[in-house]
Amino acid sequence: MEKFNASIGFDQRMWDADIRGSKAYAKALERARLVTSEEKDQIITGMDQISDEWSRGVFMIKPEDEDIHTANERRLKELIGAPAGKLHTGRSRNDQVVTDMRLWLRDAISTLKENALQLMSTMVERAAAEIDVLFPGYTHMQRAQPIRWSHWILSHAAALSRDVERLQEIKKRVNVLPLGSGAIAGTPFDIDRELLRQELEFDSISVNSMDATSQRDFVVEFLFWGSMCLTHLSKMAEDLLLYSTKEYSFITLSDAYSTGSSLMPQKKNADSLELIRSKAGRVFGRCRRFIDSHFSFCPVVHLQEDKEAMFDCYDTVHAVLQVTTGVMSTLKINPTVMEAALSPDMLATDLAYYLVKKGMPFREAHGVSGKVVFAAESKNVALNQLTMEDLSTVSPLFRSDVSSVWDYSSSVEQYSAPGGTAKSSVTAQVEHLRTWMRNQAQ
Amino acid sequence: MEKFNASIGFDQRMWDADIRGSKAYAKALERARLVTSEEKDQIITGMDQISDEWSRGVFMIKPEDEDIHTANERRLKELIGAPAGKLHTGRSRNDQVVTDMRLWLRDAISTLKENALQLMSTMVERAAAEIDVLFPGYTHMQRAQPIRWSHWILSHAAALSRDVERLQEIKKRVNVLPLGSGAIAGTPFDIDRELLRQELEFDSISVNSMDATSQRDFVVEFLFWGSMCLTHLSKMAEDLLLYSTKEYSFITLSDAYSTGSSLMPQKKNADSLELIRSKAGRVFGRCRRFIDSHFSFCPVVHLQEDKEAMFDCYDTVHAVLQVTTGVMSTLKINPTVMEAALSPDMLATDLAYYLVKKGMPFREAHGVSGKVVFAAESKNVALNQLTMEDLSTVSPLFRSDVSSVWDYSSSVEQYSAPGGTAKSSVTAQVEHLRTWMRNQAQ
Amino acid sequence: MEKFNASIGFDQRMWDADIRGSKAYAKALERARLVTSEEKDQIITGMDQISDEWSRGVFMIKPEDEDIHTANERRLKELIGAPAGKLHTGRSRNDQVVTDMRLWLRDAISTLKENALQLMSTMVERAAAEIDVLFPGYTHMQRAQPIRWSHWILSHAAALSRDVERLQEIKKRVNVLPLGSGAIAGTPFDIDRELLRQELEFDSISVNSMDATSQRDFVVEFLFWGSMCLTHLSKMAEDLLLYSTKEYSFITLSDAYSTGSSLMPQKKNADSLELIRSKAGRVFGRCRRFIDSHFSFCPVVHLQEDKEAMFDCYDTVHAVLQVTTGVMSTLKINPTVMEAALSPDMLATDLAYYLVKKGMPFREAHGVSGKVVFAAESKNVALNQLTMEDLSTVSPLFRSDVSSVWDYSSSVEQYSAPGGTAKSSVTAQVEHLRTWMRNQAQ
Amino acid sequence: MEKFNASIGFDQRMWDADIRGSKAYAKALERARLVTSEEKDQIITGMDQISDEWSRGVFMIKPEDEDIHTANERRLKELIGAPAGKLHTGRSRNDQVVTDMRLWLRDAISTLKENALQLMSTMVERAAAEIDVLFPGYTHMQRAQPIRWSHWILSHAAALSRDVERLQEIKKRVNVLPLGSGAIAGTPFDIDRELLRQELEFDSISVNSMDATSQRDFVVEFLFWGSMCLTHLSKMAEDLLLYSTKEYSFITLSDAYSTGSSLMPQKKNADSLELIRSKAGRVFGRCRRFIDSHFSFCPVVHLQEDKEAMFDCYDTVHAVLQVTTGVMSTLKINPTVMEAALSPDMLATDLAYYLVKKGMPFREAHGVSGKVVFAAESKNVALNQLTMEDLSTVSPLFRSDVSSVWDYSSSVEQYSAPGGTAKSSVTAQVEHLRTWMRNQAQ
Repeated sequence: MEKFNASIGFDQRMWDADIRGSKAYAKALERARLVTSEEKDQIITGMDQISDEWSRGVFMIKPEDEDIHTANERRLKELIGAPAGKLHTGRSRNDQVVTDMRLWLRDAISTLKENALQLMSTMVERAAAEIDVLFPGYTHMQRAQPIRWSHWILSHAAALSRDVERLQEIKKRVNVLPLGSGAIAGTPFDIDRELLRQELEFDSISVNSMDATSQRDFVVEFLFWGSMCLTHLSKMAEDLLLYSTKEYSFITLSDAYSTGSSLMPQKKNADSLELIRSKAGRVFGRCRRFIDSHFSFCPVVHLQEDKEAMFDCYDTVHAVLQVTTGVMSTLKINPTVMEAALSPDMLATDLAYYLVKKGMPFREAHGVSGKVVFAAESKNVALNQLTMEDLSTVSPLFRSDVSSVWDYSSSVEQYSAPGGTAKSSVTAQVEHLRTWMRNQAQ
Repeated sequence: MEKFNASIGFDQRMWDADIRGSKAYAKALERARLVTSEEKDQIITGMDQISDEWSRGVFMIKPEDEDIHTANERRLKELIGAPAGKLHTGRSRNDQVVTDMRLWLRDAISTLKENALQLMSTMVERAAAEIDVLFPGYTHMQRAQPIRWSHWILSHAAALSRDVERLQEIKKRVNVLPLGSGAIAGTPFDIDRELLRQELEFDSISVNSMDATSQRDFVVEFLFWGSMCLTHLSKMAEDLLLYSTKEYSFITLSDAYSTGSSLMPQKKNADSLELIRSKAGRVFGRCRRFIDSHFSFCPVVHLQEDKEAMFDCYDTVHAVLQVTTGVMSTLKINPTVMEAALSPDMLATDLAYYLVKKGMPFREAHGVSGKVVFAAESKNVALNQLTMEDLSTVSPLFRSDVSSVWDYSSSVEQYSAPGGTAKSSVTAQVEHLRTWMRNQAQ
Repeated sequence: MEKFNASIGFDQRMWDADIRGSKAYAKALERARLVTSEEKDQIITGMDQISDEWSRGVFMIKPEDEDIHTANERRLKELIGAPAGKLHTGRSRNDQVVTDMRLWLRDAISTLKENALQLMSTMVERAAAEIDVLFPGYTHMQRAQPIRWSHWILSHAAALSRDVERLQEIKKRVNVLPLGSGAIAGTPFDIDRELLRQELEFDSISVNSMDATSQRDFVVEFLFWGSMCLTHLSKMAEDLLLYSTKEYSFITLSDAYSTGSSLMPQKKNADSLELIRSKAGRVFGRCRRFIDSHFSFCPVVHLQEDKEAMFDCYDTVHAVLQVTTGVMSTLKINPTVMEAALSPDMLATDLAYYLVKKGMPFREAHGVSGKVVFAAESKNVALNQLTMEDLSTVSPLFRSDVSSVWDYSSSVEQYSAPGGTAKSSVTAQVEHLRTWMRNQAQ
Repeated sequence: MEKFNASIGFDQRMWDADIRGSKAYAKALERARLVTSEEKDQIITGMDQISDEWSRGVFMIKPEDEDIHTANERRLKELIGAPAGKLHTGRSRNDQVVTDMRLWLRDAISTLKENALQLMSTMVERAAAEIDVLFPGYTHMQRAQPIRWSHWILSHAAALSRDVERLQEIKKRVNVLPLGSGAIAGTPFDIDRELLRQELEFDSISVNSMDATSQRDFVVEFLFWGSMCLTHLSKMAEDLLLYSTKEYSFITLSDAYSTGSSLMPQKKNADSLELIRSKAGRVFGRCRRFIDSHFSFCPVVHLQEDKEAMFDCYDTVHAVLQVTTGVMSTLKINPTVMEAALSPDMLATDLAYYLVKKGMPFREAHGVSGKVVFAAESKNVALNQLTMEDLSTVSPLFRSDVSSVWDYSSSVEQYSAPGGTAKSSVTAQVEHLRTWMRNQAQ
C-alpha cells in the first residue's frame, strides 16, 4: 500500500516551490501570532539551509519521506526542533501541495513559452530565407496546388502562435493563490491571505476554499494545452516524415536526428520525427485520464497522479519543442526535387480561373477544366502538352494566351491576398509573425 | 460510399450561417469585378428567398444535396440560373464550410454563456437564501468538517465562473475570418478579405491560408471547453446523487427530475442527475476522437465529423445546463437531516486548534486530538461525551473551556478568512460572484 | 428529460429479438401457472401479428413509446387486452432488454463473420493471382527489403484471421441467457430458466442475477473487437493510401472509391481509404466511453447508450468490411512501377548475408555492408555500380560472385522458411489460409 | 535523442526471456550450419553465465546498453568474443524483441491467473461463510430489493470468472513463435522454426513474417484484458467505498487498508479502495494509446512503449488483485446495520407479487402497489404500518395474509430459481464457482 502512495521519487523536483511556500506561510503565521518572531526566523533559516542542501545535491531522502512536503518538514524538524511542528498550523496537505504545484507550474510555463518562441523563430527565419522554393501543396495526401515551401512552414508557425497565446491564458488561471484554504472549510486564525499572495507573487486569491483545495482544472488545462501543442508538432512531423522518404526526397534529416537498423545496413530511420509524433498521444492520454477521474464519485485523483501528469507533460513538451527546433534548424531541403514534383495537372484550378477571367461562371469553368484533365489523361500526355486544337474542342474560349497558365512561378504569384502563397503575402506573414514574437518576448 | 459522406441530415441547421457567408462573398466578388452589380443583386435576392424558405420550414431538401452548402447553391441555381455558378469563384468547399462553422459557433457560444450565467445565478441566489444551513463537508467520501450548504454550492459556482471565462477566450479565436483562403494557396483575383471581415463581423483575419482551411483547433477547443464544463456539472451531480439517497436524505429532487422502475413500485431514480453525469463522457469522447484524428497522417477529419462533434457538444452542454438549472431551482433540502448528520468527531481538527491556541505546536496537537478520538472510540461514546478526566489523561492542557469546541455554529464561524465557510466569508463570496456575473452580462 | 431517455428511434431494429424473447417468456409463464394456456396462446398470436406488422413496415410507433420493448407491449395490449398485462410478471426492464440485446448481437456476429471471411477470401485469392509481383517492403516508412506484393496482402489477411477467431470467442459469452434474473434478486415463482434457454437457443444460463442484469461486458468485448478489427483495416488502408499517391503510384483505385474536389478539377481523393481509417477511432471511442462509464459510481450506463454503441459498432464494421472488400477487389496494381521502386540499397542485408556465407560473423558483416553503402553514397552511384576494386577496399571477402546478390527475384527466394516471402512460402500461406477459411465456414 | 530511445531502465526484467530466446536461436544457427557446434556451446555457456549474473544481481549495465537485448549481447561478446557476433545472423531486433515479449508475457499471464483465482476463492468462501446476512440491494444508488450479502459478493466473483476465461484465450494467441521472421521478409538460410518452437515451448508458429514482426495485437489484447479486469475490481471497490462511509456503515476496513489525514485527526480514508478504482483508468489509458498509435501512418509504436505498457499493465493488475484480496479477506461486516437498512418499501415488488398470486395481472398489481407506497408516504408511516382498511381502500384483494409479505427472510427465499438470492440458489452459485475454480487450477 505504501509503495503505491509514495511520490518522493518524482515530486522532489518541487523542492524549491515547497520551500518558498513554507517560508511565506511562516511569515503569515507570525503575523497571526501563531509563531513568535524568533520561531519564524528559525523556520526561515532552516528552510534556507534545506534549500542549500537541495541545490548542492546533498539532501538525504529517508525511507519514511513519502513526498517532498513531508521530506522538507522532516528535515526542518531535525534542524530546528519543536518550532517545525508549528509550520503546518491551519494548513492541510492539499493546501500545501496545490500551492507548490501552482508555483512550480507557473515557472514551467515561462520556460515552455521561451521554447515555443525559439522554435517559431527558427521556423520563421527559415521561411524568410527559403522563400523562393516552390513545391507541391497537398490535400488528402494528393498533390493539390503549387505553393511556397515557406508557406507550408508558416502554416505550422501560425498554429504555434495560437499555442503561445493559449499558454498565456492558462498562466493567468494557474497563478492564483490557494494557500489558506485548509482542508475544505478555509483557514481559522488570522492568516493573512493577501500577505501570502504578495510574498509568493500570485496574481489573485482563490474564491472558495472547497474549490481551491479540490480543483485541478489548472492541471487539466495545462495537459490539454500540451496535447494541442504536441498535436501541432506532430502534424508537422508527419509531413516531414513523408517528405523525407525515398518516394518524396524533399528533405534530408541531419544524421543527429536519424538512426539505423540492426539488420538492414542501408536504413536511416527518421526516428526523431516518429518520436515527435508519438508523444502527443502520451500527453493527451494523461489529460484523458485526468478528466475521466473527475467522473468518479470521489476525489480519487490522488495527488501523486496530478503531479506525475503535470511533470510528464512538461518534460515531454519541453523535450519535443527542443528536438523539433533541432530538426528544423538542421534539415536540408532539396529544391530541385521539390520543384520537379510540380506537374501541370496541379494547375487545373488555374486553368479554370483562366476561363473565369474570360467570363465563364466558375462552376462551368471547373467542369471544362476537368474535361481538359480527362483529355490529357486519354492522350496520356501532360496537361500543357495538349494542342490548341485539343483545347478548342473542349471550349472555344481557349486561346493561345493559355500558355501563360503553365508557369508555376506565375501561378503562386496570383495568390497575393492576405494569407496567400504569393511572395508578397508570404513576406507579410513573416513580418507579422516577427512582430508578434517581439511583442510576446516582452 | 455516398451515404457515408452525406451530412445534410445534421448540418442543415447551419443554413443561416451559410447564407450570410455567401451574401458577403457575393459582395466581395462584385468588388473584384468577378460578378456584375446585377448578378450580385440576383445572388443576394435569391439567398434572401432561400433564407425565407428555411425560416418558414418549406425548404425542400433533394436526394442529391450532400450538405447544406450544396443544397443552398443548388436552390440558388434553380432560382436565379447562371449567376449562381459564379458564387463559388475562388472559394473552396473547405473555405466555405469553415467560415460557416465559425459563424455558427460564435452565436452558439453566446447562448451557452447565457445558459451558464443563468445556472450560476440560480446557484448563487440559492446560496444566499440558504446560508444558515450547516451540513457535513466530505473528503474522500468521509465526513470531514462542518460547512455551510451554501459553501458547497459556491464551490461549484466558482468552477462555473472559470468555464465562462474560458468560453470568452475561445470566442476570440473562433471569431477569425478564414474566407478567402481558397483550397490551400489562398485566393487569386482581388477578393477583399477586409470587406468580408466587416460584413461578417469577424474580429480578425486568418494569417495563413493553408492553416486557415485545414485547422480545426477552434472546434477542439470548444469540445474541450464542453468537457470541462460538463465535468464540473457532473461532479456537482455526483454529490447531489449521494445526497438524494436514502442513506443521506439531504435533498429531495422534484418529481419532474425523477423516474420510476418497471418492476419495483417504490423506486424513484434520480435520472436527471445520472444523465448529467453521463454526458461529460460523451462530449469528451468527441474531443478525444478529434484530437486523435490529428495524429493520423492526412486530414481524415472529414468535415462531417467536425460539424457533428460541434453540434453534439453544443446540444449536450445546452441541454445539461438547462436540466441542471431546473434541478437546482426545484430541489428541496432537508436542513434537519443535514444538521443531524454533523457529529462531534468532525470537530477533531477544532480540538487540535484549541490546543494550538494554548500554545501546543500543531503537529503535536494533531496527535493529541487523534488520541482523544481513539479514547472516545474505545469508550464507545461521542467525542463530546468524554469527561474532563478522560481528556486530562490525554493532555493537561484541556480545561473546562473545551466545551466551547462542541458547537457546530461556532466552528464554522472560525473560518472567516477570504474563501472560508464563516457566514461573512460566504456572504462575501456571494457578493463577489454577483458582481462578477453583472460584469459578464454586459 | 423524456427526450433524453427515448431510444425507440434506434432500438426498433431489435423488434424481432424482443418478440422472440416475449414469446419464450409467455411459455415459461404458462408452465409456472402465471398465465393460462389460453392466455399464452393469445400472447403468442398477438406477438406474431406484431411481428408481421414490423415485417411489412406497417407498425405504427406512438409518441408514448419510449423504446421497442414498451412499444411492442403497448401494441400487444391493444390487440389482446388484459393478458398483455401479465407478460411482464417477474421480468424487469433490464432483464428484458439484456435478453433482447444478446439475441440481436448473436445474429449480428454471424453476419460480421461472413463479411470478414468474404474480405479475407478476396485478399487471399488476389494474393494467389498476383504472387509474382515484387515491390518494396517498408519499415518506418523507409524502403527496407524487396518482398512480394502478395506477402503484404497476406500480412493483413493474417490479422483478419485473428479477428475472426476472437469473434468466435466473444459469441460464446454473448450467447448466455439472462432472462429470469428480475431486477437484481432473481425471479420468484417457478420460472423455468432451462426452458427459456432452450426456446431461445442460448448456450448457457447466467450464474448470478445481479451480475446478469447489470453487466454489459459482452457489449464492451464486442466494441473492443470492432476496434481491433477496424484498426487492422485502417492499417491496410493507410498503406494503400500511400501506395495510391502520385509519389508512389503503385495502385489505382477504382473510380467508384474516389471523389473529386469542388475547387481543383484534377484531384481524385482516395475517400474510401480515408474513411476506412477514420472509422476505427469512432468505434474505439464508443468502447472507451463504455469502459469509462464503468468507473462511475452507479450504473449510469443508460441502456440506451449500450444499445446505441452496439448498433453503431455493428453498422460501422459491417459497412467498412464491405467497402474494404470493394476496394480490394477493384483496385488495379501497376507492377512496372512497383518493381521499378526496388533499388540496390535494399539488398544491403543480402550483401551482409553474402559475407556471412563466406564465414564472417553477422555483426561484422553488417558493418562491412554499411561501409559499402557509404562508399556508394560517396561516389554517388547505386550499390551495384561499385567496382570490384571499390568493394575489395572495404573487404577482401568480396569476389566476382557478389554480382549474384543484385537480383531482386533471387533475393526474395532466399526467404523460404515458413512465413517468408519466397514464392513457396507465400503459396504455403495462401494454402494455409484457404484451409483455415474452409474450416471456419463450416 | 538517445535518452528518449533507451529502455534498459525498465526492460531488464526480461533478461531471462532474452537469454532463453538466444540460447534456442544458437541451436537453430548450429543446425543451419551458421555456427559450429563449438561456437554454439560457447554461446550457451556464455548465456548461462549471464543468466547467473542477473540471478545474483551482479550484472553490470553499461551506459551504452540501450536495452536488455543489446546489454546481453554486449556482455556475451565480453565473455566469449567473436562467436557472439554470429548470434544475430538473420535475426532482426524486432524479431528478437517480440519473441522475448511473448515469452515473458506467457509467464506473467500464469501468475495473474493464480492471483485472480486466489481472489475469487477468498470471495467465494466469504460468501459461503456469511450467507445468512441480508442487506439492501441497490440499483441507481437507490435501495431496490433485499438480497443476501453473499449474493452481492458472488455477482463480482462471476465477473472475475469471465476474466479468467478471457485470460486463457489470450494466452493461446500470445504463445505463438515469431522468431525466424527477420525484419519483414522472413529468414533466409535454413533456420528451423519448428526446432525453435519446441525449444521455447510455443504452441504454434506465426503465419506471415511481416505480420509477425509488426503486430502487437497480443499486447493490446492483454491491455484490454487488464482494463476489463480492473474495471470489475473497480466496481466492487466503488460499492465497498460507499458501504464503508458513515452514512452506510455496512463494513469496516482493516486499518492496514486505511490512512489518515494531516489536518483532521478523526479521518480514516479508504485509500485502498480509492486506489483500486483509480487504477483501471491507468491501464485502459495505456490500451487506448496503443490502439491510437495503430491509426498513425507508420509503426510509431516504439518498441519501448509496447514493453512499458505491458509491464505497467502486469504490475498494476498484479498489485490490485493482491490488494483486493487483502481487503476482502480482512474487512469486517456489520450485519446489524446491514439488516437495519432494510425497509418495508423495498418489499413493494413483493406486494405486487402478492396481488399477482391473487390473479391480478402484474402491470395492474405494479400500479396498485405504487398506490400503497403513496398512501404510506401520505400518512408518513412505513408500508407495513398501513392498516387493513388503508389497504382495502386501494384494492379489495388485500387480506390479512398480506402481513406475511413484511418478512425480509421470506422475501429473499422466493428467489430460488438458478441465479437468485434464495439461500439454496446462493449455495448453488458457491458450489458452481468452487467446481469451476478447481477445473481452472488444473
